[in-house]
Amino acid sequence: MMLENISQNKVAEGWHKQYRHSSRVLNCDMRFAIYLPPNATQHTPVPVLYWLSGLTCTDENFMQKAAAFKSAAALGIAIVAPDTSPRGELVADDDSFDLGQGAGFYLNATQPPWNTHYQMFDYVTQELPSIIEAHFLVTDVKSIAGHSMGGHGALIAGLTLPEQYRSISAFSPICHPMQSPWGQKAFSAYLGQDTTQWRKYDACEWLKSRKATLPILIDQGDADSFLAEQLKPETVLAAAKLSGSEVQLRMHSGYDHSYYFISSFIDEHLAFHARYLQST
Amino acid sequence: MMLENISQNKVAEGWHKQYRHSSRVLNCDMRFAIYLPPNATQHTPVPVLYWLSGLTCTDENFMQKAAAFKSAAALGIAIVAPDTSPRGELVADDDSFDLGQGAGFYLNATQPPWNTHYQMFDYVTQELPSIIEAHFLVTDVKSIAGHSMGGHGALIAGLTLPEQYRSISAFSPICHPMQSPWGQKAFSAYLGQDTTQWRKYDACEWLKSRKATLPILIDQGDADSFLAEQLKPETVLAAAKLSGSEVQLRMHSGYDHSYYFISSFIDEHLAFHARYLQST
Repeated sequence: MMLENISQNKVAEGWHKQYRHSSRVLNCDMRFAIYLPPNATQHTPVPVLYWLSGLTCTDENFMQKAAAFKSAAALGIAIVAPDTSPRGELVADDDSFDLGQGAGFYLNATQPPWNTHYQMFDYVTQELPSIIEAHFLVTDVKSIAGHSMGGHGALIAGLTLPEQYRSISAFSPICHPMQSPWGQKAFSAYLGQDTTQWRKYDACEWLKSRKATLPILIDQGDADSFLAEQLKPETVLAAAKLSGSEVQLRMHSGYDHSYYFISSFIDEHLAFHARYLQST
Repeated sequence: MMLENISQNKVAEGWHKQYRHSSRVLNCDMRFAIYLPPNATQHTPVPVLYWLSGLTCTDENFMQKAAAFKSAAALGIAIVAPDTSPRGELVADDDSFDLGQGAGFYLNATQPPWNTHYQMFDYVTQELPSIIEAHFLVTDVKSIAGHSMGGHGALIAGLTLPEQYRSISAFSPICHPMQSPWGQKAFSAYLGQDTTQWRKYDACEWLKSRKATLPILIDQGDADSFLAEQLKPETVLAAAKLSGSEVQLRMHSGYDHSYYFISSFIDEHLAFHARYLQST
């Protein structure tokens, strides 16, 4: 496995770096970004927070706009931001922003033409962590977070693989993709018409029948234009209640769906994850 | 004077807002952004920091990438980010990134075709502050800061109009544009070949012969690829020495020219300005 370093910037006494690599799981070249806090560039392995971005994003949105570096540096947490789908001229795509490249939905596609490359669940939960742990001064202790489509991804990854992560957080997640137009469009294309195949990628379906064992924090702005139609945070509370799971949902007055919202509360998410990442 | 609000996002309990307006000085429509800390959206007028961006930027670069909001909110400082030049189909332009639209250099052009619109010095020091003070809950107390071409702009505005500002700061400024390829190209076009007309827009020329009365803070990364050819911070120290002016220049090991650098130290710049903005 070769990693090609394609940029680096010192920030908050640590380093933001972008890498390109050939992904076996996705069958294409991929780019990711990592923030290494000061101690990880010296001698102390650090835990890792994986950040999954939303529709149309790349590895760059979080790194440029989330204002997370000072907290990550102070807490000694590395942050890894993958891209949001497989990429490239040979990778299936769609003209719309909410399907195809930039819209991988963090699932393993079963339907052609998508199943050749769109295996984002395995990429972000297996291949990418194994690359990170082989190449950087990090421990295998990890948590997962994300925004919108990436909030859905973080919930699904953390709920499905509780032994792999310590904690889950999400900003403005698509809580119930089976009841969201974005989710229905993506799941139909990637997974086919049999909706029983959709359930394992729906946080609410998961939470209805199983008790979550990881701590879960969700922040949601009440001025988010996607709130009622696409995000539906009330559904995750209802599902959690059915299984006796604990989900902390915080509604924030006046905040929208943008990185302005994320940057306002990212320090609190990092502190939340640090509590679990740093416990022994 | 009509202000058209074109976006708003709650951030760090305050508001980021973008406005469009017709500029009399620039003879075209312009966009600017303002961050209003929580108290400015309620009842307490706040002082204003003007931020001047670098080549190719708009009002958005600082607001999206500088990570300044939490400090500005805590300190009670509004931040105004103008565009970096006049804009529009009828505004003279050039194919290169360092001349024309996106490259106004914060001066008043005297040469055709530029002199019709490129009057950025008067816009950022006169017209824009008068608009801000007429439309928002701010005081007339202001400081000025900027990056690269905007660092040059902040130095020139603050040095030339010390009665108007309380303090000056710059990240990676073009310290001596008359000795910088970027500055020489822009000054030749906008001001003509008579270099005596260039001097009033060159911080080093200004500082050689007059003592600065405002506090000046400059941060510069030593891994900045433009350092030796374009920025030349040593020239501003030499010029300040000649006039007995005080300039605090901090060199930062490993940092480059990007907003990753700015975001690492913007809190310290805001605290620096707050000391002078909030004194009576």
